[in-house]
Amino acid sequence: MAGASTSMRLRLPIACIALEVILIILFGVAVEYDHDVSGEAGHKTNTTHHDYENEFYYRYPSFQDVHVMIFIGFGFLMTFLQRYGFSSVGFNFLIAAFSLQLATLVQGFLHTIMTGGKIHVGVESMINADFCTGSVLISFGAVLGKTSPVQMLTMAVFEVILFSVNEFILLSLLNAKDAGGSMTIHTFGAYFGLMVTRVLYRPNLDKSNKKNSSVYHSDIFAMIGTLYLWMFWPSFNSAITLHGDIQHRTALNTYYSLAACTLSTYAFSALLNHEGKLDMVHIQNAALAGGVALGTAAEMMITPFGSMIVGFLAGAISVLGYRFITPFLESKLKIQDTCGVHNLHGMPGILGAIVGAITSLAATKEHYGNGLTAVFPKITSDFPASAQAGMQAISLVVTLGIALIGGIIVGFILKLPIYGAPSDSQCFEDGVYWEVYLPNAYYIGMLHRSERSEA
Amino acid sequence: MAGASTSMRLRLPIACIALEVILIILFGVAVEYDHDVSGEAGHKTNTTHHDYENEFYYRYPSFQDVHVMIFIGFGFLMTFLQRYGFSSVGFNFLIAAFSLQLATLVQGFLHTIMTGGKIHVGVESMINADFCTGSVLISFGAVLGKTSPVQMLTMAVFEVILFSVNEFILLSLLNAKDAGGSMTIHTFGAYFGLMVTRVLYRPNLDKSNKKNSSVYHSDIFAMIGTLYLWMFWPSFNSAITLHGDIQHRTALNTYYSLAACTLSTYAFSALLNHEGKLDMVHIQNAALAGGVALGTAAEMMITPFGSMIVGFLAGAISVLGYRFITPFLESKLKIQDTCGVHNLHGMPGILGAIVGAITSLAATKEHYGNGLTAVFPKITSDFPASAQAGMQAISLVVTLGIALIGGIIVGFILKLPIYGAPSDSQCFEDGVYWEVYLPNAYYIGMLHRSERSEA
Amino acid sequence: MAGASTSMRLRLPIACIALEVILIILFGVAVEYDHDVSGEAGHKTNTTHHDYENEFYYRYPSFQDVHVMIFIGFGFLMTFLQRYGFSSVGFNFLIAAFSLQLATLVQGFLHTIMTGGKIHVGVESMINADFCTGSVLISFGAVLGKTSPVQMLTMAVFEVILFSVNEFILLSLLNAKDAGGSMTIHTFGAYFGLMVTRVLYRPNLDKSNKKNSSVYHSDIFAMIGTLYLWMFWPSFNSAITLHGDIQHRTALNTYYSLAACTLSTYAFSALLNHEGKLDMVHIQNAALAGGVALGTAAEMMITPFGSMIVGFLAGAISVLGYRFITPFLESKLKIQDTCGVHNLHGMPGILGAIVGAITSLAATKEHYGNGLTAVFPKITSDFPASAQAGMQAISLVVTLGIALIGGIIVGFILKLPIYGAPSDSQCFEDGVYWEVYLPNAYYIGMLHRSERSEA
Repeated sequence: MAGASTSMRLRLPIACIALEVILIILFGVAVEYDHDVSGEAGHKTNTTHHDYENEFYYRYPSFQDVHVMIFIGFGFLMTFLQRYGFSSVGFNFLIAAFSLQLATLVQGFLHTIMTGGKIHVGVESMINADFCTGSVLISFGAVLGKTSPVQMLTMAVFEVILFSVNEFILLSLLNAKDAGGSMTIHTFGAYFGLMVTRVLYRPNLDKSNKKNSSVYHSDIFAMIGTLYLWMFWPSFNSAITLHGDIQHRTALNTYYSLAACTLSTYAFSALLNHEGKLDMVHIQNAALAGGVALGTAAEMMITPFGSMIVGFLAGAISVLGYRFITPFLESKLKIQDTCGVHNLHGMPGILGAIVGAITSLAATKEHYGNGLTAVFPKITSDFPASAQAGMQAISLVVTLGIALIGGIIVGFILKLPIYGAPSDSQCFEDGVYWEVYLPNAYYIGMLHRSERSEA
Repeated sequence: MAGASTSMRLRLPIACIALEVILIILFGVAVEYDHDVSGEAGHKTNTTHHDYENEFYYRYPSFQDVHVMIFIGFGFLMTFLQRYGFSSVGFNFLIAAFSLQLATLVQGFLHTIMTGGKIHVGVESMINADFCTGSVLISFGAVLGKTSPVQMLTMAVFEVILFSVNEFILLSLLNAKDAGGSMTIHTFGAYFGLMVTRVLYRPNLDKSNKKNSSVYHSDIFAMIGTLYLWMFWPSFNSAITLHGDIQHRTALNTYYSLAACTLSTYAFSALLNHEGKLDMVHIQNAALAGGVALGTAAEMMITPFGSMIVGFLAGAISVLGYRFITPFLESKLKIQDTCGVHNLHGMPGILGAIVGAITSLAATKEHYGNGLTAVFPKITSDFPASAQAGMQAISLVVTLGIALIGGIIVGFILKLPIYGAPSDSQCFEDGVYWEVYLPNAYYIGMLHRSERSEA
Repeated sequence: MAGASTSMRLRLPIACIALEVILIILFGVAVEYDHDVSGEAGHKTNTTHHDYENEFYYRYPSFQDVHVMIFIGFGFLMTFLQRYGFSSVGFNFLIAAFSLQLATLVQGFLHTIMTGGKIHVGVESMINADFCTGSVLISFGAVLGKTSPVQMLTMAVFEVILFSVNEFILLSLLNAKDAGGSMTIHTFGAYFGLMVTRVLYRPNLDKSNKKNSSVYHSDIFAMIGTLYLWMFWPSFNSAITLHGDIQHRTALNTYYSLAACTLSTYAFSALLNHEGKLDMVHIQNAALAGGVALGTAAEMMITPFGSMIVGFLAGAISVLGYRFITPFLESKLKIQDTCGVHNLHGMPGILGAIVGAITSLAATKEHYGNGLTAVFPKITSDFPASAQAGMQAISLVVTLGIALIGGIIVGFILKLPIYGAPSDSQCFEDGVYWEVYLPNAYYIGMLHRSERSEA
């Protein structure tokens, strides 16, 4: 029975409780407060610094902006589907609340591999955990509407681990720069999710096609998500950069990139429609590509001029992707990408990695003055800017490799018939996993006239 | 006539104008800028501190997060009712704008009882006033849909005073710790509101029952409220703690508690539904209980491990409350708790008070180092941790006492037939107090099919 | 053909791409990072200041609050129209993203007129650009629903320039104080927009009248905008004041003004309705007038008492404006003011300018102590407070002059038949410029019963 097979009565409680108990035990064993959190309670003698030098005041406002992006931004961006609002915002909430806990452990564990000792938590670990969570939610966007919550929690377990390994390789082993995560977050999350949805390909998804679209109000809800992502992206890219002018510059560059991206999004959206009408899908998504595309280079001396060029290109690429590449991926490569993450995170992420590598080439004393070592600690006379650019390029290749291979493997794990996934005709439908109090045909209340009179 | 009896034509203007005029006069007589607000204008000589040491920079971002919780968080959380969105968000707005002004005066007056002098205002008074307002809005949640705006303003007058007295007893006389208000805000607001709604019991409320529920879109609006409360609760609990590591730690502990609470909410929501379907009521509310339950202990060295255990328990208790205790309260004790504040604020608030008392027992040099006096200024060799724990426990009893007795008395005051309260068949209905431009049957546009064909 | 004449297929791409390319070139030629942005990379020797003294930490949280007001606040406030939600939030997005780029250039250019050199960008320029953008969006509110996006971009080009010239005259030449922009932002934006809509007068707009109103859900969406504007207005008024106590005081005064304004709004809204019912239009708009009316005086020693009186008056004036003056403007003066910006920004802006002038009269050592020069740098024994007050009054006159004359001229420019403006029967209708997937009659799904049965 379809009803029985999708029941979460036991699956979801078992998954949630088991995972949370494991998390709690591991936190009990392995985690302690960072020095700026325990303060004098930490028995440290280094207590001479002033309250205003506590990391909290440098980063907590940025953290909260990032937090809003994760829970409101991603959550509401995905409410565009007409009958999937509860699941979009609700599963986003569940997956994020889980992922940030696991990410704290896995990222923290990798961080202590070199030094030993316990995992330290504080506002920096909170930001890093939200970043990893963002990557998981990007992948969630690719499979949106076609999976069960337990399936998504399972995906999150594997993706958090793979994300953290990739991030560790890039930032700690290859010494790549990627403060806003063009590679670690966006490219990784997108291609991982695309491979998962490829493996989970549903040939008969057209049975749910009527529901795989927006209605008037759901598009306005989605704009809440879009605008919060857009406004706070400068905080996202700058949240874990070094203090002072670098953080300042990162926010500023991102802001210009997004502004330019918005104009190119509107331009190309109108241009590609035969009546010149704007498409909400483009506005909701492509206008954000400017933030993705500056995820690597925003902390560098790319200048507002450079940022705006990158943003403009990112918006154009993203709209073109929605118009031409998404249909191609679906029909030819059997990749059903519900939210079009390839256009918002995939291609702009790769663009961002390339822009980062190119911008690194200009990492000279001439452009950075004494600030050079702050941005590029590895660059010396023995390790020139071109070597840094090479490391950036290698990092993109590594990220794509781990994302693609990891996504395929995890896709097969998620194909096991144990997660209570919906049938092809139940996709994009809240009623499968949620108490919905009204008859399906009316719970949006705004169907086509013809459908209404049939009812 | 029902129409005449609910008219706000004179009642509301008289109430609003009279209250505001009194407030303005009292502000003129009794209030002056705090030193960090008037600066050198205050004729003070103490002007050696730097701009960045101004209290504003330590607390204003937290204040704005709290402000969003009060106006968007509470306001939208209550929009879940299908025909009561204007009132939920609009009366929340009115009551909050009034309460924060009165709270500034009453809290300030009690604060100067010891020292004399004028009431000082600044970012700290803004936060404290918002906290008191939060408590009033919790009580508003208990009576939501069954009261007139003038009745709510009257309730706010009395509740702000009682809240401030209770807060003064706890924090200034009993030296209890309660930075995030498990007792002062949540326990007080919930049990006060439950007593008010008990006294205002409506035996024929089933006449409005059809409207006492959500529709699809109203549940998504409510999720906006939920998520803002969830994201910003770390700011709420840490907004008035001491600077530096204590504020940092309070935010961090709350964040872990909320994350764990979310997983237990999803687990128990699915477990308690016979089809295993998730219930939006649980997700919207119980996932927040982890913030309430850490309102006392978050600034202590409870560790992430301890925080997660508390959060997990709070979520479970809260879901169980919605499933079993709310129906019991309504049928047996005649307590009609519209938003289920007993489950979100009442029980988790008591849990938080108990957790705070227990955690205080571990308030030793061993755990806190030199930071001990910062968190527990009263603890000395003469006043051991166990005495602090005792004070915490007494504080809970005092809070419950004042809330229960105060709520009953204020309930009777609110029962006077002068406020223009709605009749039993007019409850949960915006049209009573608001211009609604569309026929009732259609203004949500998403009724049951059967109702629609009757129309 | 109507369809052809409103097509954006070529018009919008040409406008967006041309404008963005020009912006990028000008940024490349004329803009460089501010010192706090480039840091040591700027080849400066002045690097002794600490990270926490970077302007970023003083202003970035305020900037983000202002940013939310511009994109979410203005954007969602205008979603109240039943069939114009995509355009309200979407064109707001486009116009704002464009205006902030142009404003950076024009404001920066005027700022360097005196000193020469390149335009410096950083968090202060970001805030100033958002302020100018706010003024453009106010004018957008006056013509909402009756214009094409290309027409709005054209208006923005001229308005940004005129705004910046007026701002330069007031702040740099007349030495007026106007930190929150009662004059520069609100009065200017409102009267400019009113003149534009006067010139664009549509005698047959009643053809679209059915759509020029709200429905239930669209009013709740609009409340999101209202509340964000209300909550963050203290950040708006204080965003570019001097550091420390002045910024603190500005936020505090604004907060009290808004609270008092809310109570007077509810009072007058109920009083003016013959059934005593509240009107959502008043709540959504008039409750914000307290922020507008303190845009000039909030940084002065106006005291909470003074702030509350101003706020109370502003709310009353604004509600009375919606009730009596807007209909008069439309029927007698042919000014069709869609959002009633005259009531929210026009009259309260003038009130704010007058309050600022009067408050300046009390700018004495007695009230300000050593802080006098910080707030009023020009006041000396040769330039008394009364002279400052005179400059404030002259500033209001200048602002009104430039706004009115500028608005008329730009109105005629916008009357050219080249922008693809909608016909009289196409106003307030998303379908003209957006892909809307559902039949018009149903895309809100909540029409009057009579309309529904006709369908």
